[in-house]
Amino acid sequence: VVKREVVRVLTPGTVMEGKLLTDREHNYLVAAWGEQQQYALAACDITTGHFYGAWFDSIEQLVGEIASYQPKEVLVPELAQSEEISKQCSNLGVQMIERVSETERETYGQLAEQQFSVSIDKPLLRNTAGLLIAYLRETQRSTLEHIQEIEIYAAQQYMLIDPYSKRNLEITESLIEKKKQGSLLWYLDQTVTAMGARMLRMWVDKPLLNRNDIEKRLDSVGFFTTQLFVREQLRDFLKLIYDLERMSGRISFGNANAKDLIHLKQSLEVVPKIKQIFEAETNLPQGVSENVAELDSCPDIVALIGKSIVDDPPLSLKEGGLIKEGYHDHLDKLKTVSRDGKQWIANLEKEEREATGIRSLKVGYNRIFGYYIEVTKSNLAAIPSGRYERKQTLANAERFITPELKEQEGLILEAEEKLTELEYNLFIEIRSQVASHVRRLQSLAHRIAQLDVLASLAEVAQERQLVRPAFSARSELVIVEGRHPVVEKVLDRDTPFIPNDTVMDGEENRLLLVTGPNMAGKSTYMRQLALIVMMAQLGSFVPAKEARLSVVDQIFTRIGAADDLVGGQSTFMVEMSDIQLMTARATKDSLVIIDEIGRGTSTHDGMSIAQAVIEYVHDQIACRALVSTHYHELAVLEESLSGMKNYHMAVQEEKDRVIFLRKLKRGATDESYGIYCATLAGLPEQIIQRAEQLLNQYRLTNRSTSETTEK
Amino acid sequence: VVKREVVRVLTPGTVMEGKLLTDREHNYLVAAWGEQQQYALAACDITTGHFYGAWFDSIEQLVGEIASYQPKEVLVPELAQSEEISKQCSNLGVQMIERVSETERETYGQLAEQQFSVSIDKPLLRNTAGLLIAYLRETQRSTLEHIQEIEIYAAQQYMLIDPYSKRNLEITESLIEKKKQGSLLWYLDQTVTAMGARMLRMWVDKPLLNRNDIEKRLDSVGFFTTQLFVREQLRDFLKLIYDLERMSGRISFGNANAKDLIHLKQSLEVVPKIKQIFEAETNLPQGVSENVAELDSCPDIVALIGKSIVDDPPLSLKEGGLIKEGYHDHLDKLKTVSRDGKQWIANLEKEEREATGIRSLKVGYNRIFGYYIEVTKSNLAAIPSGRYERKQTLANAERFITPELKEQEGLILEAEEKLTELEYNLFIEIRSQVASHVRRLQSLAHRIAQLDVLASLAEVAQERQLVRPAFSARSELVIVEGRHPVVEKVLDRDTPFIPNDTVMDGEENRLLLVTGPNMAGKSTYMRQLALIVMMAQLGSFVPAKEARLSVVDQIFTRIGAADDLVGGQSTFMVEMSDIQLMTARATKDSLVIIDEIGRGTSTHDGMSIAQAVIEYVHDQIACRALVSTHYHELAVLEESLSGMKNYHMAVQEEKDRVIFLRKLKRGATDESYGIYCATLAGLPEQIIQRAEQLLNQYRLTNRSTSETTEK
Repeated sequence: VVKREVVRVLTPGTVMEGKLLTDREHNYLVAAWGEQQQYALAACDITTGHFYGAWFDSIEQLVGEIASYQPKEVLVPELAQSEEISKQCSNLGVQMIERVSETERETYGQLAEQQFSVSIDKPLLRNTAGLLIAYLRETQRSTLEHIQEIEIYAAQQYMLIDPYSKRNLEITESLIEKKKQGSLLWYLDQTVTAMGARMLRMWVDKPLLNRNDIEKRLDSVGFFTTQLFVREQLRDFLKLIYDLERMSGRISFGNANAKDLIHLKQSLEVVPKIKQIFEAETNLPQGVSENVAELDSCPDIVALIGKSIVDDPPLSLKEGGLIKEGYHDHLDKLKTVSRDGKQWIANLEKEEREATGIRSLKVGYNRIFGYYIEVTKSNLAAIPSGRYERKQTLANAERFITPELKEQEGLILEAEEKLTELEYNLFIEIRSQVASHVRRLQSLAHRIAQLDVLASLAEVAQERQLVRPAFSARSELVIVEGRHPVVEKVLDRDTPFIPNDTVMDGEENRLLLVTGPNMAGKSTYMRQLALIVMMAQLGSFVPAKEARLSVVDQIFTRIGAADDLVGGQSTFMVEMSDIQLMTARATKDSLVIIDEIGRGTSTHDGMSIAQAVIEYVHDQIACRALVSTHYHELAVLEESLSGMKNYHMAVQEEKDRVIFLRKLKRGATDESYGIYCATLAGLPEQIIQRAEQLLNQYRLTNRSTSETTEK
Repeated sequence: VVKREVVRVLTPGTVMEGKLLTDREHNYLVAAWGEQQQYALAACDITTGHFYGAWFDSIEQLVGEIASYQPKEVLVPELAQSEEISKQCSNLGVQMIERVSETERETYGQLAEQQFSVSIDKPLLRNTAGLLIAYLRETQRSTLEHIQEIEIYAAQQYMLIDPYSKRNLEITESLIEKKKQGSLLWYLDQTVTAMGARMLRMWVDKPLLNRNDIEKRLDSVGFFTTQLFVREQLRDFLKLIYDLERMSGRISFGNANAKDLIHLKQSLEVVPKIKQIFEAETNLPQGVSENVAELDSCPDIVALIGKSIVDDPPLSLKEGGLIKEGYHDHLDKLKTVSRDGKQWIANLEKEEREATGIRSLKVGYNRIFGYYIEVTKSNLAAIPSGRYERKQTLANAERFITPELKEQEGLILEAEEKLTELEYNLFIEIRSQVASHVRRLQSLAHRIAQLDVLASLAEVAQERQLVRPAFSARSELVIVEGRHPVVEKVLDRDTPFIPNDTVMDGEENRLLLVTGPNMAGKSTYMRQLALIVMMAQLGSFVPAKEARLSVVDQIFTRIGAADDLVGGQSTFMVEMSDIQLMTARATKDSLVIIDEIGRGTSTHDGMSIAQAVIEYVHDQIACRALVSTHYHELAVLEESLSGMKNYHMAVQEEKDRVIFLRKLKRGATDESYGIYCATLAGLPEQIIQRAEQLLNQYRLTNRSTSETTEK
């Protein structure tokens, strides 16, 4: 009986390989902790060794950040305060695991500081990181050697966008089908390495706030857009590089095989060629030069693997054939023994044929009887008596052995047994040596990923004709001929995308109110503005002819909605909650986007709330805002609100048809074309005529009302 | 070199086993064909052998039906007419495969009739079925013996509900998370067999139109609700039955192993016990009695497997141990040889210890050297010279053989080689015999599934306190204290679900117009009505105190909506398209449900269209309809439309707070409580006060307008 012990506990958040893992996505396990209005999070991808720590001062921010890691599992401490976190996370569809009791927390803090050899000054963050480390140690039963660095950030370092807005803007997945295709990430992702793809996902998820950081990225992207030849060479070489991060993880964990080491060597051999590309280039932007300078091609590792592991090793580690000749004396000797024995047996057939004169005599091998000499029944008489020992009788032949044959067989088998064992031990030793350099490999992977992402953004910029956004200190958001990146990309070639301008500033043009008919591209326009801002701040060029903006600290969107029926919230209630969040958190540097404000309640009710919210955003928050409404009556606010401007989506009327131009124009409109839509949809003539008749009546009444009100 | 040939082509629609398959769901491959406004569909689940054929006279119906099979792949003929089908199916996210050219279609028709040994009188359907059969034959390279029956139906046999309404009503999966949990199917599924679960999914997907068929199901469900003991016994026995359908498929396909046959036998042995449960029962309803009567326990198959296959066979078919002793003479002889040899070797250790006096002497076996006698180094001197032949030297011992030992070893190995081959051949023979009865097994599976579903519906009826719906010939839809099944189930125990009545008839109460505040349960109420009707017509009891209805031929719903941005359709346009479909297809027996009619366009536009549509539904279609609106102004239509009645969701006002009673009341309301929602959501006081002030102004204006209009 083999004694079994638990060597690893597999959980969805700690999968190292197999179908549950997607190459181009991280697999994060997250721990979260909240105490006295302070919240901390730790996130680790054990396949790559990435480890993050962050803190927040609201639970919404915490939950938003948890969501952005798309974890399969979330760890929380077994404390009453965790209840709210658990509840909110369950709404995200995440499985909760409760760990740690009140008494253990100090130990956990120490654990984290040991693991990373740094002191972490926020106690809550220290405990959270420790909780995660403790869980990993317990489930992995391993040293976690490849988890050596914790990257700590505060929520305030990145642009804040709540998870619902992200979902709605289709940042990393499409709204309905929940696939990457159709998302902003899909649009931007031209990376050629898995490491780059994962890093780009992080960048898309966390646009920057620091203008210098943004410009640094943009400089690099700019460099790659102009240096086409450099970019293409770089990307061609990057394609040859395997997933160094996950490979390092497997090497540390001791589940990398010989093929992995060969792939590692092949990847490392590409690195000097990459450095060479940039050698002739002067004036490299900092974001490129610092990455290139720091590329470590690890020649010692290449040399080690090169001299020890054969070029095309088998998958199995236990059947030999891994180690090169010349690497280890005793191994070479065993190989010689085995080879000589086999040679002796190979010669035997020829010798015995000559000796017996039986031309059909064969020497063969099978698993059960070992090596044998086979003679067909008809030739048996030709065997000199006593020459062979009978071993096995077949239908048509007899099989024999000789003592010499069996002796050689014994030598071969014994040599091979020792040989495979020795090879295995040598391999483990080599792998451990490589594992001791895991930090260098991770750092290299990080540099490679950066170059890949920057070149990818340049690739997209050129392919989709994007432009570099300019940042200014004073509040503005001016887009000339902006396009919705994804919609433009998926449109047929025959249907050109109609670009639109945006002019916003901190003063007279802070709040744009858009009225206008349906099917005229209002929602697309509103989303496009949010996407352009996000793209600019993550360091990408943007789909426009010209873009000038100042850094946006948060984006609030309220676009579209699905009823949360079981959750018991109506569309309108969801809208009100979103607006509440916005009023509580938006600053003058935020961007607010509300589509069809105040819909979902009765006419006057909705109109009153819409106006009150618009006034509040205008007067109190005073941030840049884009609001659309079906209450065309609200256009009159332009007269009283100095920072508000009316816009509408233009329509061209011809005799008996209407063309939606999808073009934003200054000024309000009072036409709505709902009935025209109804006609397009093919509603019965009877309904159309009746609706027109009713509409005319309303218009007459309305005119008289205006007159009444003006009196 | 082994010669390889293609034995099967695997495609997503033709998977037979593994992770891609879910036990409780079918895995359909669908073929579709359209010609001259006629449409046909063929659908096959090769894992179970189910094969359906259906025809339609509109492409919407075809696509709706395709969607309901949730196929991974759809086959269409390689013809220009297929383009529209392909386009619509791609929108469903289904992969299209084009097959067959113009010249081949006659062959395909014949193929279908051969496969099923019937004549199919609709040529288009014949070709479609043939197209699917041809594809299966080509990819499976197998006889498809378990696909023997085609079940043909016309679209008109089942209640029609378009795929968007199904999605929105959360029939088989939840809207946002796309999981079974939270759907009507999840609510109804208490089946205990995989066959039952799959059949229930079909029932839920296809409510019936024939009143007799519905009553027959309801009778059976009724029987099981009262006969608690019978139901519990039945369900306990059903739990012991394996997935007979998929097992039959594997047996026919020749990839069933010995364990499968044992599971089959165990399942069949349960059948007589099930029949016995019902023996004492008189007055069984027809839906139960005909299933029980037809249960075929296949005693011949039980006997065959019972005498041939061992009770706990290994997974592998190639390592022996499958066949019982006594089943086959020659096999028994080989077993004796092997057993005697092993016995001889077992005795050898004892004998040799005695003969040599070496107490630590051991007889062992290893894969390379076979059987050996092992003596430790210190005892070597004790071996009588010439007794053993040296074989292998270990660090601490020597291993020996004797000619007798090797002779026995040869006998054992040879016997075992023959034995495993013979067992394998015998097994294949037995499996083929069972395969020849596949039709009987499928029929049994069908009966079992029916009983499982009926008992499951009774289980739900009792657990959730459902009531049997009564059907009447004259148009009505009267629900007393109806509940939304899923919402009620997921609510906390502390939050009781508020039931609501519905009174509809073909005359004065044909169209109900619901106004009223948000958060008052309007959407829930509307969905609940559709779900109750569907439940009743699929043969389930319903969540109400009393339910009286006449058969509904189609349900049209327009509830909630997500913008289809990339598709280029606005919410309003989607609404108009849905309404167009409704105006074109609804009959006086249909049920129309529209939530928030006319929203998503400007006020007057929307109100005009809403009124025109309401009038059209009322006057022209004259079917039962439930419509809600935020245009409280439309309540006035009650005066002019004789079949329309106003309703509202009641609210109780107390001093400074408002309680939403979620209770439907007769009459209109002009209160909307949007501002109250805003307060609840925590909007700044400033916004609330301003909105109230504005609302009061509107009310004043409105009053003066009414006066103006009345003049």
